[in-house]
Amino acid sequence: MLKNLELFENAEKMSFIDQSVLPTEKKVITTGDYHEVADAICKLIIRGAPAIGVSAAMAVAVAARNEKAQNVEELHKKVTDINAFLAGTRPTAVNLFWALDKMAQASKEAAACSENLEEYRKAVEKAARNIASEDVTTNKIMAEYAASLIKDGEVILTLCNDGVLCSVEYGTAGGAFVKAKEQGKNIEICVQETRPLFQGARLTAWELQQEGIPYTVMTDSMVGYAFENKKISMVMLGADRITCNGDTANKIGTYTAAVLAKHYQVPFYVVAPSSTLDLTMKTGKEIVIEQRLPEEVTVIHGKRIAPEGSKVLNPAFDVTPGELITGIITEKGIFTPPYNYESLKINLD
Amino acid sequence: MLKNLELFENAEKMSFIDQSVLPTEKKVITTGDYHEVADAICKLIIRGAPAIGVSAAMAVAVAARNEKAQNVEELHKKVTDINAFLAGTRPTAVNLFWALDKMAQASKEAAACSENLEEYRKAVEKAARNIASEDVTTNKIMAEYAASLIKDGEVILTLCNDGVLCSVEYGTAGGAFVKAKEQGKNIEICVQETRPLFQGARLTAWELQQEGIPYTVMTDSMVGYAFENKKISMVMLGADRITCNGDTANKIGTYTAAVLAKHYQVPFYVVAPSSTLDLTMKTGKEIVIEQRLPEEVTVIHGKRIAPEGSKVLNPAFDVTPGELITGIITEKGIFTPPYNYESLKINLD
Repeated sequence: MLKNLELFENAEKMSFIDQSVLPTEKKVITTGDYHEVADAICKLIIRGAPAIGVSAAMAVAVAARNEKAQNVEELHKKVTDINAFLAGTRPTAVNLFWALDKMAQASKEAAACSENLEEYRKAVEKAARNIASEDVTTNKIMAEYAASLIKDGEVILTLCNDGVLCSVEYGTAGGAFVKAKEQGKNIEICVQETRPLFQGARLTAWELQQEGIPYTVMTDSMVGYAFENKKISMVMLGADRITCNGDTANKIGTYTAAVLAKHYQVPFYVVAPSSTLDLTMKTGKEIVIEQRLPEEVTVIHGKRIAPEGSKVLNPAFDVTPGELITGIITEKGIFTPPYNYESLKINLD
Repeated sequence: MLKNLELFENAEKMSFIDQSVLPTEKKVITTGDYHEVADAICKLIIRGAPAIGVSAAMAVAVAARNEKAQNVEELHKKVTDINAFLAGTRPTAVNLFWALDKMAQASKEAAACSENLEEYRKAVEKAARNIASEDVTTNKIMAEYAASLIKDGEVILTLCNDGVLCSVEYGTAGGAFVKAKEQGKNIEICVQETRPLFQGARLTAWELQQEGIPYTVMTDSMVGYAFENKKISMVMLGADRITCNGDTANKIGTYTAAVLAKHYQVPFYVVAPSSTLDLTMKTGKEIVIEQRLPEEVTVIHGKRIAPEGSKVLNPAFDVTPGELITGIITEKGIFTPPYNYESLKINLD
């Protein structure tokens, strides 16, 4: 099974897949230098919210192992500075700050009670391993739940990347496909290329190829054709934010797929960790959709495909109404309609 | 108003827009050499079924004017050879053969009854002008009908290219937008980029910019978002083939837009000349969908976006069921459901 991130023995080194050269090349970068990890996060060589958080935590552990110091206090000070440095790599990444806060706390506690450098280093390493294994555990549970919904012979539509590349192992929706295959089910995944940034074609297709899961790449314009002619029997994909009524923000294109699924009376599933549930928001109307640069749409590989001066739409996400979602699969269980604060809250407790 | 093709005085020269350099450059090529027109058709510098036919007819007239000959018989023989040469430029283009057959017939008749070279040349020129003006007349009538359905303030979704670039003037759906603007209506066009070949972003957006019609370019993945957030009030686009029950083959993506239009209870109109009606076919199930090369999907501007060895879907068209189509607008009038052989036939007579 494919792994994205790995922390080596004693945290002397770590490795990650270089996502910037996919899908044409598989390059695993192994390093003992936290600068290289920071650089990889900056340059989207590592991307996907959980992957960013975990890799930064691993980089802290690697730094704790490899930095020279006379004593624990000195090393803790160095590690604290490195932690702050890593936090500057992606200024809006919530998972990054969450993971680095945990590491800062661990470093502080380790510094307070460690007798020697080795003890401190081991404690920091353990904290990083905990963060990574928590991600893996969550994904494994979600994958089990989600795979239980997948039947033998299922043809599943998905988009964007919700697989191993955005996490340590498995991923969310991507993890379900791997699990279903492990269970011996024959499945086929229809992968929307996911314009404007092609995460489906570049990353998800590559993951599926690595895992030996049959898949077909298509443009986003082919979704209707695929429902009719590829006999899509299920939609399964990830989520960026889910509100109290089940309204779900996810990569642009998700809502279109949901309307088609309704038209074809095909189940539409969202796979996401419970941390994606935002119970401070009643409905999707409260979600602010990030509008990104027009050039992501109008320029591809340096070449312009629409006239200069064109008005351009480039929302990063769309919002799929809860009533179009057959089930929301988290590590806490499967939520089904009617979605409301009470039902979601109870399951999260 | 934008013109794509023009035949100059005495057919000494003709001009066409170079579509291969759009949308970054507007280049009008003027030539008195039929070889250059043949080359342009081969290299997709001229594209779109009607435009190919008309430009080839014009090239025959230009050749008849500029070729040296001692007498009518000799010139007719030369023109006949040139006609055959032009027919080889795009081996599957029905409009090309239709137009060149008409020109061959005209040349034959002109050779039989012309007293001198000038008379022959004038007759051939007249045949080319007739073909061109027939296209313009058809488009103008369709544009009038279609524009009558467009209200002030309409936000119209379209895709691919059905404007002036695929004809002499106006185009089909594109002609309706120009006409609506001429009628003083404020409209906005939402243009799907139309993967894999980007005809919407490259060509339709450019045409609309030239005509001063407000438009917004978006990826095909944004169609659901645009219905919800841009308040699309109508879909209007072209067709490649329409069967007895109204089932319509058109550029891939059309069917997805039709399902969304149904979900939003927004009218969905097809604009196409009556020659698009194929009354030999009962339903869309009889239409064979052209499957094109995977590289159109997986490689953009020479760079690969999906892994080598991926299974790829690349249908040129999809089929929208007649029951999702509010109206089919031709130069013979507006057809509305229920579509059937009788109703379509009666209107065509």
